[in-house]
Amino acid sequence: MMKAGPLELGDAPKSSTPKSGVNRGVSILDFILRLIAIMATLGSAIAMGTTNETLPFFTQFIRFRARYNDFPTFTFFVVANSVVCAYLVLSLALSIFHIMRSAAQGTRVVLILLDTAMLALLTAGASAAAAIVYLAHKGNTRVNWFSICQQFNSFCERISGALIGSFGGIMLFILLILLSAVALSRR
Amino acid sequence: MMKAGPLELGDAPKSSTPKSGVNRGVSILDFILRLIAIMATLGSAIAMGTTNETLPFFTQFIRFRARYNDFPTFTFFVVANSVVCAYLVLSLALSIFHIMRSAAQGTRVVLILLDTAMLALLTAGASAAAAIVYLAHKGNTRVNWFSICQQFNSFCERISGALIGSFGGIMLFILLILLSAVALSRR
Repeated sequence: MMKAGPLELGDAPKSSTPKSGVNRGVSILDFILRLIAIMATLGSAIAMGTTNETLPFFTQFIRFRARYNDFPTFTFFVVANSVVCAYLVLSLALSIFHIMRSAAQGTRVVLILLDTAMLALLTAGASAAAAIVYLAHKGNTRVNWFSICQQFNSFCERISGALIGSFGGIMLFILLILLSAVALSRR
Repeated sequence: MMKAGPLELGDAPKSSTPKSGVNRGVSILDFILRLIAIMATLGSAIAMGTTNETLPFFTQFIRFRARYNDFPTFTFFVVANSVVCAYLVLSLALSIFHIMRSAAQGTRVVLILLDTAMLALLTAGASAAAAIVYLAHKGNTRVNWFSICQQFNSFCERISGALIGSFGGIMLFILLILLSAVALSRR
């Protein structure tokens, strides 16, 4: 590694300047996108994880209270977003490494693999939650699942809003994988 | 095309044998995995799309009939699987191109981008459907959504089974993206 650095810097003016420069730019963009994705997934996890509505009235049989963990799907959503957020924080190290060593290949392949797995996890969490949010809004009269959004208004707004960060994160991951592929093809 | 084969075979003993050979192997594996993924997603789409159960009794008010398109999520599942399946069939052309021209880079980057987008679509469809299938099995007593699997037994078995092909397809896509990244890093 220590040998490769100076060698490359020495080479730079002759042949590999544009490619190395482009790859460094790509790596910096990768780093910035990861920071945005951290905010997005963290925001989603917190927004969903703090959702809790108790209605100001109750009957003998039912206490009108809705929390995110009444729905296993929302628990999964919070877990998925937290895991992806933690992964993104750790992956910043690799991203910085790529800014410094823009010719690295092996670590980029590893990063693509991990990014792809995390994209799948985040998409799974976000779309499973979206399916339940849709049901909460619309219900399904065929099987007598009624909408709960008339009663739990702020609960519904909150769980709908929490999806945004997650779907933003999905877009960012697709961009991140594309950037890594471009960097790999350009070395 | 007919020229490339002999030419490359002629080159082989001199310099580019290992890398070119590995990339050709990777491309052939890519092609095979795509064929399997086509079967998996097609199977899922058909299994879900033909799900239809009418119970042999009915009341004045309700006819006990369950079809996949009573649930918008399952319609999305069928559409997502069909789109991904059609994409995979088209992508076979690129895969064959990569077997013949194992040094190609630009098309591999395009393939990674498209594969990633399709992975996200397939994961979204599969996990949204999984969330509803879970609800159909377990229900959610907190919000009075009752399980429908006692009544619609074969319907529930069918929609659960249809998920398998989709989740298998997700695994295959992650492998496909990894293979493309490996091929890019090895040229």
